[in-house]
Amino acid sequence: MTSMPKPPSLPPVNPTAEGVLPSGIGELIGYGTDRPGLIPLWVGEGDRPTPDFIGEAAARALRDGQTFYTRMLGIPELREAIAAYIARLYGGAAEPDRIFVTVGGMQAFDIALKIAAVPGDEVVVPTPTWPNFFGAIEASGAHRVMVPMSFSPASGWALDIERLAAAVTARTRVLVVNSPANPTGWTATHADLRALLAIARRHDLWIIADEIYGRFSFDPAHAALGRAPSIRDVWEPEDRDRVLFVQTFSKNWAMTGWRIGWLEGPAQLGRIVDGLILYGTSGIATFLQHAAVVAVRDGEPLVQAQIAQAREGRRILAEGLGRLPGVELPPPAGAFYAFPRIPGEPDARHLAMRLVDEANVGVAPGTAFGPGGQSFLRLCFARSAGDLHEAVRRLAPVLAAGR
Amino acid sequence: MTSMPKPPSLPPVNPTAEGVLPSGIGELIGYGTDRPGLIPLWVGEGDRPTPDFIGEAAARALRDGQTFYTRMLGIPELREAIAAYIARLYGGAAEPDRIFVTVGGMQAFDIALKIAAVPGDEVVVPTPTWPNFFGAIEASGAHRVMVPMSFSPASGWALDIERLAAAVTARTRVLVVNSPANPTGWTATHADLRALLAIARRHDLWIIADEIYGRFSFDPAHAALGRAPSIRDVWEPEDRDRVLFVQTFSKNWAMTGWRIGWLEGPAQLGRIVDGLILYGTSGIATFLQHAAVVAVRDGEPLVQAQIAQAREGRRILAEGLGRLPGVELPPPAGAFYAFPRIPGEPDARHLAMRLVDEANVGVAPGTAFGPGGQSFLRLCFARSAGDLHEAVRRLAPVLAAGR
Repeated sequence: MTSMPKPPSLPPVNPTAEGVLPSGIGELIGYGTDRPGLIPLWVGEGDRPTPDFIGEAAARALRDGQTFYTRMLGIPELREAIAAYIARLYGGAAEPDRIFVTVGGMQAFDIALKIAAVPGDEVVVPTPTWPNFFGAIEASGAHRVMVPMSFSPASGWALDIERLAAAVTARTRVLVVNSPANPTGWTATHADLRALLAIARRHDLWIIADEIYGRFSFDPAHAALGRAPSIRDVWEPEDRDRVLFVQTFSKNWAMTGWRIGWLEGPAQLGRIVDGLILYGTSGIATFLQHAAVVAVRDGEPLVQAQIAQAREGRRILAEGLGRLPGVELPPPAGAFYAFPRIPGEPDARHLAMRLVDEANVGVAPGTAFGPGGQSFLRLCFARSAGDLHEAVRRLAPVLAAGR
Repeated sequence: MTSMPKPPSLPPVNPTAEGVLPSGIGELIGYGTDRPGLIPLWVGEGDRPTPDFIGEAAARALRDGQTFYTRMLGIPELREAIAAYIARLYGGAAEPDRIFVTVGGMQAFDIALKIAAVPGDEVVVPTPTWPNFFGAIEASGAHRVMVPMSFSPASGWALDIERLAAAVTARTRVLVVNSPANPTGWTATHADLRALLAIARRHDLWIIADEIYGRFSFDPAHAALGRAPSIRDVWEPEDRDRVLFVQTFSKNWAMTGWRIGWLEGPAQLGRIVDGLILYGTSGIATFLQHAAVVAVRDGEPLVQAQIAQAREGRRILAEGLGRLPGVELPPPAGAFYAFPRIPGEPDARHLAMRLVDEANVGVAPGTAFGPGGQSFLRLCFARSAGDLHEAVRRLAPVLAAGR
């Protein structure tokens, strides 16, 4: 991090804060927001407001006066309900002591970093990836080490394990493993996950595992389990304590704006996480946590509806955009983004702005996601079929003309 | 920060996180929680749940589907409503661009620190003080420099400006100014505030100003203004950009559990604060922010009721405890805590535990608040008169016997 010029009239500003990374997605939203009729596919959220059965639980707890300070790691009912959900989905016993409730997956990631890395340490992240990983890593004073994945129009994205292993140095403390991945949809195989664990074991690294799109896996082989392969499926007992899972209510339960998620890791970290939450944000409103209990306990039909909608959205974009000349779009294996390459386009940022102006569709430029994403666009398909058909109709002529 | 022993089986843990400070208040709560009938005066919150007119606004916004991702710095309506409140209370124009909505005052303080201090820097804090200042400073990698205030049974607490000035070194970047103060009730005069500004100007320091108890001032001279003296009353134009105010909805509007507050500072910091919020917590639920708009816009009668309750609570504790032999309790000038000294008591922590066991009253031990607090207890009086009378009745024999 280089020191930036000091703004006039202020005392010295911490160069790490001064250098906080801009968001390439936020730039586009700033450019296109408030355009009448724009179809916003630029962020990772659907068009479904949180269902009433969840909202009513919050309203009920509010009326009951659940408005006081609460426990830093989450109310016991919520930690238990999350642990039970994990046990249902992945097998094994419910372990509420491993669950720490956070302000969304973002705070979970930030706390995981604070535990695992000291300023100056290196955090290895395959790219293209969610830009907030970069932002949080650099804001913590650590440094991102970006390992580009490879793309083939025929077979999609692949992670080169050798290349990743070669990026590990003496300063590396963390591997970030995001599968199914935002924005690429790349979904790790069990072999990939075993190889990543082996690297972590060899170098005594933490793994921050982001499996938040785990329910959104389109490989028919995963349908019976109802989820993508997880690092839990392949870890050895001695691996367990080096994995910190970040999770969120945002995607599965249509609760993006609520800012509730969780960190899952060794129970012995509870004291540290408690302190970091106390001195960072001091917990989550009890009345919101009661609603989260209802979501995770009773929300499986909602999750299934979300998955079905994403499956249909994926089909619409993959067919609608994939057949356009000059667009390469192998259907993504997981998550809920189409990430087409526009090989003739050297500047996805400029193209995304043109799509706002000429198609009235908001997409995220691949440039926002780090090395390897420059010629790509990201479009969220967790939305109504009507919107997605209309988006394809509007995008097609501009993308065709842009060749 | 010294490196702590590594917990067994984990990869290396960041020593700053490993050394996160325990909360001396939390320890007592852990000791006494779930005791039937215990009167909890240990934390800074009242016994009044958030009033319905605020809760209903949140429920309404929830039903309206205000559940999506939102702006990092707060919705414009809330930034405007807060700015209008500040203008009403302190004079001047409303400046919404200076208002950044945060997850309670705690995140506001954490972000202020991230802007102002680099790991290794020093932050000067008069003590006894709110222990979360210490926790956040050390968790950020900076170091607290504690400057004990002086106590007189006749006249209460005083800040020795020379002593504070002498604590400033070449590594000092921040002065924390909390007035009215938690736990002492100390309330800065305009002369104090001018002197603090002069020190900050001389050394080019940031001031983090915590005036969250500003409405709770019991000096009749402040009654006409409806607030304690503020650093705003005395700053010169060139001082303005070095002051970062942390604020909260918790106390004035009975919203402790909601976790909504704000940071107020130079508008040019907006880009940095936006990034730090994005990569830390990603904002506050829109439906909660709409309720906060209602609170700050329509909540003045509530604030007045809160102040009246605290005034009566102060009288009950000051009279009820102040007359006990072996208890020194000059009535606090501001905030809503009684902070009696028990001169015969070398270990307030032990005494606080005894008060749980023998009086079934929860108090915070002065040991939690840093140098100068060792023989004191903190009792929150923002509660119903009935509870406080009963607390006095229970505490009196134990405190008398303890001499």
